Amino acid sequence: MANNLQSKPVQCALISVSDKTGIVEFAQQLQQRGVHILSTGGTFRLLQDQGIQVQEVADYTGFPEIMSGRVKTLHPKIHGGILARRGIDDETMRQHAITAIDLVVVNLYPFQKTIAQPDCDYQTAIENIDIGGPTMVRAAAKNHQDVTVVVKPEAYSSVIDAMDNMQGIPFSMRQKLALQAFQHTSAYDQAIANYLSDVISTADNTQQISDKFPDTLCMTFSKSFDLRYGENPHQKAAFYKEVSNSRATPEPSLATASQLQGKALSYNNIADADAALACVKNFQEPACVIVKHANPCGVAIADTLLEAYQRAYTTDPTSAFGGIIAFNQEVNRDVIDAILAQQFVEVIIAPSFTQAATEALSNKPNIRALNCGMWSSAPSPYLHYQRVEGGLLAQDADLSVIAQPNISCVTDRQPSPQEMQDLLFAWQVVKYVKSNAIVYARKQQTIGIGAGQMSRVYSAKIAGIKAADENLVVKGSVMASDAFFPFRDGIDAAAAAGITAVIQPGGSMRDAEVVAAANEAGIAMVFTGIRHFRH
Amino acid sequence: MANNLQSKPVQCALISVSDKTGIVEFAQQLQQRGVHILSTGGTFRLLQDQGIQVQEVADYTGFPEIMSGRVKTLHPKIHGGILARRGIDDETMRQHAITAIDLVVVNLYPFQKTIAQPDCDYQTAIENIDIGGPTMVRAAAKNHQDVTVVVKPEAYSSVIDAMDNMQGIPFSMRQKLALQAFQHTSAYDQAIANYLSDVISTADNTQQISDKFPDTLCMTFSKSFDLRYGENPHQKAAFYKEVSNSRATPEPSLATASQLQGKALSYNNIADADAALACVKNFQEPACVIVKHANPCGVAIADTLLEAYQRAYTTDPTSAFGGIIAFNQEVNRDVIDAILAQQFVEVIIAPSFTQAATEALSNKPNIRALNCGMWSSAPSPYLHYQRVEGGLLAQDADLSVIAQPNISCVTDRQPSPQEMQDLLFAWQVVKYVKSNAIVYARKQQTIGIGAGQMSRVYSAKIAGIKAADENLVVKGSVMASDAFFPFRDGIDAAAAAGITAVIQPGGSMRDAEVVAAANEAGIAMVFTGIRHFRH
Repeated sequence: MANNLQSKPVQCALISVSDKTGIVEFAQQLQQRGVHILSTGGTFRLLQDQGIQVQEVADYTGFPEIMSGRVKTLHPKIHGGILARRGIDDETMRQHAITAIDLVVVNLYPFQKTIAQPDCDYQTAIENIDIGGPTMVRAAAKNHQDVTVVVKPEAYSSVIDAMDNMQGIPFSMRQKLALQAFQHTSAYDQAIANYLSDVISTADNTQQISDKFPDTLCMTFSKSFDLRYGENPHQKAAFYKEVSNSRATPEPSLATASQLQGKALSYNNIADADAALACVKNFQEPACVIVKHANPCGVAIADTLLEAYQRAYTTDPTSAFGGIIAFNQEVNRDVIDAILAQQFVEVIIAPSFTQAATEALSNKPNIRALNCGMWSSAPSPYLHYQRVEGGLLAQDADLSVIAQPNISCVTDRQPSPQEMQDLLFAWQVVKYVKSNAIVYARKQQTIGIGAGQMSRVYSAKIAGIKAADENLVVKGSVMASDAFFPFRDGIDAAAAAGITAVIQPGGSMRDAEVVAAANEAGIAMVFTGIRHFRH
Repeated sequence: MANNLQSKPVQCALISVSDKTGIVEFAQQLQQRGVHILSTGGTFRLLQDQGIQVQEVADYTGFPEIMSGRVKTLHPKIHGGILARRGIDDETMRQHAITAIDLVVVNLYPFQKTIAQPDCDYQTAIENIDIGGPTMVRAAAKNHQDVTVVVKPEAYSSVIDAMDNMQGIPFSMRQKLALQAFQHTSAYDQAIANYLSDVISTADNTQQISDKFPDTLCMTFSKSFDLRYGENPHQKAAFYKEVSNSRATPEPSLATASQLQGKALSYNNIADADAALACVKNFQEPACVIVKHANPCGVAIADTLLEAYQRAYTTDPTSAFGGIIAFNQEVNRDVIDAILAQQFVEVIIAPSFTQAATEALSNKPNIRALNCGMWSSAPSPYLHYQRVEGGLLAQDADLSVIAQPNISCVTDRQPSPQEMQDLLFAWQVVKYVKSNAIVYARKQQTIGIGAGQMSRVYSAKIAGIKAADENLVVKGSVMASDAFFPFRDGIDAAAAAGITAVIQPGGSMRDAEVVAAANEAGIAMVFTGIRHFRH
């Protein structure tokens, strides 16, 4: 067999592991197969205690462990043994009494776990940066022509299998294990860099954009699960979770939510639920957001979640079919009953569910219910990434919230208190509608949502058409626009539809003309100074 | 000054650099300030040749460089010197004749450059994996309490400045340099992992999904440039380029394009130009794609680029204003003159521009012109990422193309050859329109584009409304839908508008009803079996 020809027998192994799962059994199996074992520190003591014959690294090198263990394995007798090219460096090994090390079993204590400990101060974090371990892992991975490197306990059994059945470790296996090794060390250093970056940015309020967007952007994500497919069935996909930085409690999100029941989440479920959750987080009052195809198709706030759901649903029952529904408070049985009574739903996400709500849901085992826990009032900033072919756009996530004092009225008429409430509501919704975005709202309920158009006036038209099609009264509604109106036509159309107040960033060259149109129609219009494009 | 209190003087430096920019001057400046310099290999010889007093590492350790340089610096006298805690390990240093190393100046030969060399085989790539360098960088970065690590020539002058003016290197500077160091080593190992992953996947056609979507996903991007702002002015942003894997020639993209003239690219320019370029790459014939707000608002193919542009523009002149225009062939002066004569344009991107076209553009210095070079006919697969809070969705980019033989007709009437040509054209466009997406097309020109709606029937309505508003004749046009029609209403609306043929994936529970609607209207309908959601 070709593979066997390239198989490498194992005669000497170096073992130093943080994750001790299965290590005693593995070392016993190696010993039974005549493998000489070198080890250090805690692993050495554990193996010795278990009656395994093991030589300490300091004994082999003749150089003591120094500086409280900072320097143990950084020695030419260790690294010569790992890096030696068999058949080329044999004479050098003999000269320097270097033993060839064929198997390196090393894994690193996850740096994220170190810094997540409540009592971890800066000095503890830094002391936990492993220097010797990654060096052995990297050296063994480099020399996979002759050496096998194992960084995960999952691989122990296949190493033993190969020793028993293939006269050693075949090249293809050594190569794949080397790949895992470099992924392991890269992720390890990335976690350290993330930690240092967080510490520096916390200490230094004058942090430059160059620190936030470094010359080399390294990102590490750990897989939550493979997906059945991506946005479409012909695309393979997986869902990853951010490798958390020093934040003790991560912000509730799709990545942290627990699934109570239902079918496996799909790619589009996750993307849509993320949008729905982000939107519903903006509200203090009982709120409901229904998302379809990445856009809110109904949003409302009310005295109860049940009422909020019913009002959100009313905006666009057609689109709500098969939608994603997000709430900002604990969901009770009434809410679940109302949903099940009138619509097909893919995902329900909420901070929590009552016992009765959970029981009611269990009759519909296909519905995905996600419990994400309650969030804090201040959102945690994070970087948004947009993929383009060959590159990546990185930007601050758009988490800006506007306070009423920062809003300026630019028309003769000021908005009434009710209008102002609706304007602020519509402004919080329009942020989550794809650009160009127009939201009609009345009594804190969306009345029509115009999404994703290439010109603003069409978004306004669509909002009106959809409201009319659902027999919703536009008269007395307000309008939010995610960016300024380039012409007065959008205001004229809104006025004709019965819109009485408008919220928008302002800043067009033709603002005067747009304000005049509002004044002519008796519309109250406010400027926010903030744009909310979302594509 | 608090910073000065924490400043650390530099008495001994270890220098071993791949990028030798400025290293001689830096070493001279260090020597003038009484710093003892240790070095190895090529750096040692260069500094010695330049008359700088420098001690070779092997001379200091008393252990020769062995195994063709594989083991040089992996020695306790080096790493003890770097890792020693000043004031704690002083006695240990004395015992083992270890000199404290205060400054480590090491940078690594970019692994990507190694593998990009045309003569780089597997063995050469592996031999170039540096083990000693990253270990010194990591050790020094860990011990930034006492040691300064420098991985970039850009930092040399500030090190000298600090030595002269702050009695040494202040803590805040050592800490930031440590961050850069871990970013450097993480990116280095990531590049190696990417290479191994590519080699393994090329060798192994049975590669599992778990290799493509590994448990730990590490991504490395290098900054192309900071952006003025992100999607909106209150968001900071930067544009990054993929750190190329083993592909010799990267696919032409926004990341590789060169800007011939114009204002700096904005976040939205890059995102829109990416979509426009991806769409126009699908066509062999002279083609033009105009994008606005992430959606195509006009697409056409014709005998010449000029005609293609004029027909694309005709679809929706309002939206084309301020748009991004992409072409798939060299742009000549006629095309530029036509654009300048009738519209405001943000970006023009094409494989190349004639000299005359470039001259004509230079009269409009604000217009961004991007030369991206010609692409190969087969697109290179890559992973698409979608950010969600706390995580990331990763999937194969949707690069599927459909061939006529894979299309099945499901109606009584077969499409005519002209209809089939238009159906294939519309199908290539609908892939790039945000879902739900409907495209009306006739004679290989878009007639109406319905984008981004939460229910399919509204996308169909919008396509019709827009065509009518632009006085374009729908009668005799074809319709493409990015996903199946859940009900017959979409077909009925299309028939009423004059649509004669339809292309869609099929697969609805109500396909029979939808097919019946088409047959009743005499519409020819084909199924592709492939869905193209794009959100």
